[in-house]
Amino acid sequence: MPETFDGTKVLLEESEIPTHWYNIQADMKTLPPPPLSPATGQPVSPEELARIFPPGLLAQEMTQERWIEIPPEVRRLYQLWRPSPLYRARRLEAELDTPAEIWFKYEGVSPAGSHKLNTALAQAYYNREAGVKKLVTETGAGQWGSALSIAARMFGLDCSVYMVKVSYEQKPYRRILMESYGASVYASPTETTQAGRAVLAKDPHSRGSLGIAISEAVEVAATHDDTNYALGSVLNHVLLHQTVIGLEAKRQLEKVDRYPDVVIASCGGGSNFGGVAFPFLADKLTRGQAIKVLAIEPAACPTLTRGRFAYDYGDTVGLTPMLQMYTLGHEFMPPSIHAGGLRYHGDSPLVSQLYHDGVIGAKAYNQRAVFEAGLMFARLEGILPAPESAHAIRGAIDEALLAKEEGRRRVILFNLSGHGHFDLSAYAEFLEGRLEDEPLDEGVLAQHLASLPEVAHP
Amino acid sequence: MPETFDGTKVLLEESEIPTHWYNIQADMKTLPPPPLSPATGQPVSPEELARIFPPGLLAQEMTQERWIEIPPEVRRLYQLWRPSPLYRARRLEAELDTPAEIWFKYEGVSPAGSHKLNTALAQAYYNREAGVKKLVTETGAGQWGSALSIAARMFGLDCSVYMVKVSYEQKPYRRILMESYGASVYASPTETTQAGRAVLAKDPHSRGSLGIAISEAVEVAATHDDTNYALGSVLNHVLLHQTVIGLEAKRQLEKVDRYPDVVIASCGGGSNFGGVAFPFLADKLTRGQAIKVLAIEPAACPTLTRGRFAYDYGDTVGLTPMLQMYTLGHEFMPPSIHAGGLRYHGDSPLVSQLYHDGVIGAKAYNQRAVFEAGLMFARLEGILPAPESAHAIRGAIDEALLAKEEGRRRVILFNLSGHGHFDLSAYAEFLEGRLEDEPLDEGVLAQHLASLPEVAHP
Repeated sequence: MPETFDGTKVLLEESEIPTHWYNIQADMKTLPPPPLSPATGQPVSPEELARIFPPGLLAQEMTQERWIEIPPEVRRLYQLWRPSPLYRARRLEAELDTPAEIWFKYEGVSPAGSHKLNTALAQAYYNREAGVKKLVTETGAGQWGSALSIAARMFGLDCSVYMVKVSYEQKPYRRILMESYGASVYASPTETTQAGRAVLAKDPHSRGSLGIAISEAVEVAATHDDTNYALGSVLNHVLLHQTVIGLEAKRQLEKVDRYPDVVIASCGGGSNFGGVAFPFLADKLTRGQAIKVLAIEPAACPTLTRGRFAYDYGDTVGLTPMLQMYTLGHEFMPPSIHAGGLRYHGDSPLVSQLYHDGVIGAKAYNQRAVFEAGLMFARLEGILPAPESAHAIRGAIDEALLAKEEGRRRVILFNLSGHGHFDLSAYAEFLEGRLEDEPLDEGVLAQHLASLPEVAHP
Repeated sequence: MPETFDGTKVLLEESEIPTHWYNIQADMKTLPPPPLSPATGQPVSPEELARIFPPGLLAQEMTQERWIEIPPEVRRLYQLWRPSPLYRARRLEAELDTPAEIWFKYEGVSPAGSHKLNTALAQAYYNREAGVKKLVTETGAGQWGSALSIAARMFGLDCSVYMVKVSYEQKPYRRILMESYGASVYASPTETTQAGRAVLAKDPHSRGSLGIAISEAVEVAATHDDTNYALGSVLNHVLLHQTVIGLEAKRQLEKVDRYPDVVIASCGGGSNFGGVAFPFLADKLTRGQAIKVLAIEPAACPTLTRGRFAYDYGDTVGLTPMLQMYTLGHEFMPPSIHAGGLRYHGDSPLVSQLYHDGVIGAKAYNQRAVFEAGLMFARLEGILPAPESAHAIRGAIDEALLAKEEGRRRVILFNLSGHGHFDLSAYAEFLEGRLEDEPLDEGVLAQHLASLPEVAHP
């Protein structure tokens, strides 16, 4: 590996933004089994899904074509921030005194502040093409809601966001950001949906969860003709759209004659992980490229490392199709850790299948170790990471220390999915020593895992 | 002017980061008269200034050399985000239906979120070279304090920030951001300095001002051997460092065969304005290039458009040297508008002299018109601007509308100095209709202007 690169960043021209998304379904040995209808337990029909998704996205959800063209209008809007820079974290390397090279792709340059805009623009595009007037979604930490608010506005669509009540109260700035882009934001659970009312009837003081907010948003989309639902992670088409990250990173590394030995990303629903990892996994799947690919998750919500590989609902109430995935149970309520984007009970079926098949690895960290890594990174490299992204940094630091122990010069790539400008109250807690690791309640977890829906595989 | 550019951004390679800063003093017909000592009323001696500034910066403050080399170590750290992108605001152009082209340089990609890091790194470098251990400064809105916190950390220096108390209370996230980078942040006025105690003795409930915070920071630097002061605007060397913005923008526009007819920047102390404008003013001063250059300021703090061109102190208490500048009086307290970075009673002597000599123009706007422009921009171009930067957007929109009226295709360039992620409470006020224009108290202004120190020009 020639040391030809003397800079800090590798940039691409706008003309080098990928023209196609990469569809890993084309190369997987085992595909996830089909989603099942919550009503019948049978494979869900296209008609059912068409109530909440436009044809363009449904086609992408199912297809096994390897390359899907990015519509020119979407590619044009990607130019508002893409190609995103690829950095070499030289100051971090020096501090760790590691022989490893640490590279990171930085998605925080997007106007939404994270990678989520890559799919939000695509989803808004296909919905507008289908004549839809309004998009409705849920958001936890707010990264997805912010991205969809921007995307909807760019395509002239209305946007409603059901924001988990605890976040709505703790993160007023995220709410205002969405409203600045013209979205309507509601604290979920609300009294305006059946799903919300059912939750409030059981617990009038419910502070909400991502699963509940999904139930509300899906209900609104299913009951309004001109309204569709948009999901920020988990589904195949969402991960597909995010592959622009890995495709760009691959090209950037090629420019400096590098190929990663290790690829690392935080993993909640899987879109960030899939986005950076899938284009590299293509090489592993098709030509046996030796590469270690690690999904990093919170120890408080350890879907891959502690969940069961089974059919489960995507939401709390059970309105969505059941997906075969690693899950902690759809009623599992993770402790209120600060990486809200990683507090989801399930995981993308594609990522789950790859983990099940041993193609990728996973690792879970407690949040204090994660914030320590995030702060160290900020002080060395300047960028203050979102807590979600700090999980990947923790993973990358540990891989670099491992390389040091082994005396091996390895090339480590991680995705820095977003900045932490809206997560400063969490950093304050950490700086003031008030941030605690949130232990998993083993009894509760066991109970949820035992009560997964019993489904006969179709 | 050939239409050769079909993209959204013009990027440069890291190797194209300028190697030298541009010093406009080399080309000005009239130079500002020297700073005067607050003690003697005579030109301030180098020894006096050396108590708070390192030799490297003092040399830059005085020199009339045209090009000053950027130290390689600083240039290397610029790579953490530079070169910053130059955008064409095509969606804004379309919305305004203007024949004008609107281009903007985007400095919000810096890890500090604004242009301030350009000078913060340079200042930290020269201080470390001089063996200084600690930097102390003031901050209003927090952009400068954030930048110096990062820069100090990068060069292994301690950093103390006196933050105007009203901002300290209203912008806790900015404070936490600085602390995340390792700085100590104090709500000014404090009891720890003579200047602070004097203010609190007069008004125990004082919520502070930039002038008071400067007094405190300067006092601390002057009374501690290993500690120096760092200023985020106004002084010659600060504006010098910011010229990387305009130099890059010039090269970027050259790449697409453009030269601006109009250059626009918001102007508080002048560093943002000088940074983008001076490299273009070089052409006006040396070869009569026809170009309109506009400084935009708040109507509530209209330094250039309503101030007096006179010697005045840089701080409230009168500890700093007196500078010849446009000023509203050093005890003038601007209304609490939300563009905190533009709430300074004075202006850079270089910018003031250029305005006095008719080389540049200035325009003042009320804040509701500014927020309206900022929100319009966010919804079209994606980026939510800081309120300071939204002043420039307002100016650019009005120039584009003027071009439409006149049916002329003009090239407009403005600097988008920073993002608005820490200004969302102000956007909320605007969205909820609670944001008011803050009228200037004419009587108070007249009184302050009348009481400027009487100084015999040396």
